[in-house]
Amino acid sequence: MGSKPKVTIHHIAEKLNITASTVSRALNDNPRISEITKKAVLKAAKQLNYQPNNIAAALRNGKSHIIGIIVPTVDRAFFGSVIRGIEEIANKLNYKVIICQSYDNYEKEVQTVDALLSARVDGIIASIGKNSTNLDHYKRPQEKGIPLVLFDRTTDELEVSQVMIDDYRGAYKMTEHLIQQGYRRIAHFTSPLKVSVFKERLRGYMDALRDYEIPFQEELVIKSNLQLEDGRAGMEQLLTLQERPDAVFSASDYGAMGAMQVLKEHKIRIPEEIGLAGFGNEPFTSFSDPALTTVDQFSLTMGRITAELFFENFKTGDKKIVPQKTVLKPELVIRGSSLRRPMPPEEQAR
Amino acid sequence: MGSKPKVTIHHIAEKLNITASTVSRALNDNPRISEITKKAVLKAAKQLNYQPNNIAAALRNGKSHIIGIIVPTVDRAFFGSVIRGIEEIANKLNYKVIICQSYDNYEKEVQTVDALLSARVDGIIASIGKNSTNLDHYKRPQEKGIPLVLFDRTTDELEVSQVMIDDYRGAYKMTEHLIQQGYRRIAHFTSPLKVSVFKERLRGYMDALRDYEIPFQEELVIKSNLQLEDGRAGMEQLLTLQERPDAVFSASDYGAMGAMQVLKEHKIRIPEEIGLAGFGNEPFTSFSDPALTTVDQFSLTMGRITAELFFENFKTGDKKIVPQKTVLKPELVIRGSSLRRPMPPEEQAR
Repeated sequence: MGSKPKVTIHHIAEKLNITASTVSRALNDNPRISEITKKAVLKAAKQLNYQPNNIAAALRNGKSHIIGIIVPTVDRAFFGSVIRGIEEIANKLNYKVIICQSYDNYEKEVQTVDALLSARVDGIIASIGKNSTNLDHYKRPQEKGIPLVLFDRTTDELEVSQVMIDDYRGAYKMTEHLIQQGYRRIAHFTSPLKVSVFKERLRGYMDALRDYEIPFQEELVIKSNLQLEDGRAGMEQLLTLQERPDAVFSASDYGAMGAMQVLKEHKIRIPEEIGLAGFGNEPFTSFSDPALTTVDQFSLTMGRITAELFFENFKTGDKKIVPQKTVLKPELVIRGSSLRRPMPPEEQAR
Repeated sequence: MGSKPKVTIHHIAEKLNITASTVSRALNDNPRISEITKKAVLKAAKQLNYQPNNIAAALRNGKSHIIGIIVPTVDRAFFGSVIRGIEEIANKLNYKVIICQSYDNYEKEVQTVDALLSARVDGIIASIGKNSTNLDHYKRPQEKGIPLVLFDRTTDELEVSQVMIDDYRGAYKMTEHLIQQGYRRIAHFTSPLKVSVFKERLRGYMDALRDYEIPFQEELVIKSNLQLEDGRAGMEQLLTLQERPDAVFSASDYGAMGAMQVLKEHKIRIPEEIGLAGFGNEPFTSFSDPALTTVDQFSLTMGRITAELFFENFKTGDKKIVPQKTVLKPELVIRGSSLRRPMPPEEQAR
């Protein structure tokens, strides 16, 4: 029996007749504390055999075994599937995953980072919200030695490892596919937001048109939130043009699905009269009639790779992490909505 | 300057020359500790002016401002939407929400409860996994004074508040709708698992048949996991019957969608030759052609009500909570897949 009580900063404070927070600041080398006090605190800590911050250090070394994930929303198949991939790897290594949603709201995202830190997570994996221009909140975990890894909606502003998809390539290949199917007036649904994924998709679309010598036309680019309703409105708008498009490539599957509904209401045949393509390979894209051509983002793989990168960073512990960037190649999923010619065999194999 | 260091159980242990864990057990009136020791501990605690468990109590009183949610999986629109409803209410009250997935795996669910407790959540809102027959892990939060509220997949084994949908009524009304549409050989996709939601839906289906004097036929009830692939297999099986069904009511939208794919492949017209209905009102049900008739579960409302019930329980603090059960009425969403006759106006209004 009779274990010695653990020495805390309170014992040091008591011995020196100063407050515990002064002791804490002194031990953390806070500039607001005088050198004399710091020396006294260190001396007392040594005499009392004080072990600094054991619990916090233990937690920081991975003792909570919890990883926090921040996504804009879980009810997108893409994010759900990435999380599944992360969890698969994490669980194998005996880590639990807790998930928070930012709803693309900057304030909520800031609060979420705080909540995860107060939930004592060992690390954070995040996809940045659409409206977060200031990213200081993502610096806090790192300051506390909590590793951060970003996926999909990433940034070069933070020195962290990131996993993303080659959105440019996906959009370029999709536009090329539509051109090869004989479509020439190809409209594009994009987002006005400065999120790089949508800018990259627009760039891929424009470059493919240029490479195939098809003039870019401003009136065929519709900017919106890319939800189902936006796709409906965008398609209605395109149908009022003097010369309507013969294909629509939407930067989101939801937008494409809205366009499909409108085309059906107008009895416009897909893919004969107007071809359709989305981006994301949401599960519902295979349920529609015709099924929707789209771009697969390998969300499960992205999750697994993100988790692996995270644990790689994690293992290095206190050592300086060299941020790594992994870019995945997306793949076209060609379905009925864009297929009005038989595909050449070499094209199918790609 | 000079704040008095807080008295901990370690000080009591030191004074009595016993271990801190013995002190802790004595203070918690653990039966394994002798009465003599208990008395000594209480006396020493009083002398030292010990304030029991301040931090833990503070946290329990809502200081972490985090609620943990446990769902089988976030990538079902139903759960995503319930979570959204919970979060809406929680955020208004300045609470953050963290989400964990059990993947319907018992072991994972147990670990998840532990993870949430170690993340110091103020309360837990959960939907029980399909395979959890032992529910002892859900007793732990309550033992620690952490309130628990259940939704959708609930149980009467635990004395907790719960919010659920009237699955029986939803299934009864849907079967009745199919009968009113002139279908007579109505098949049902259900789950072999002992989850009450599926048992209730099966019961609603059977009772409606009975009330309309349509004989129940075992061969028309297909048991499976109710995923897309299961729906496909189930439909293929039904089509091999000597006398095939003229309608299928699936206890999940995924199963119904699989059936729709198979019917289209067989060029069987929906709803003319075979009518189709699902359960859940997943977003993709409105994208298919024909759109799928289904049962709406008011998932967003369910989330809001669950959160309100939670905070109501929460406010009561240490006082004994009287568990409340809220049952929501589901609503039919009649779409093209089952509508082969015009609906009588009074029917549409329901």
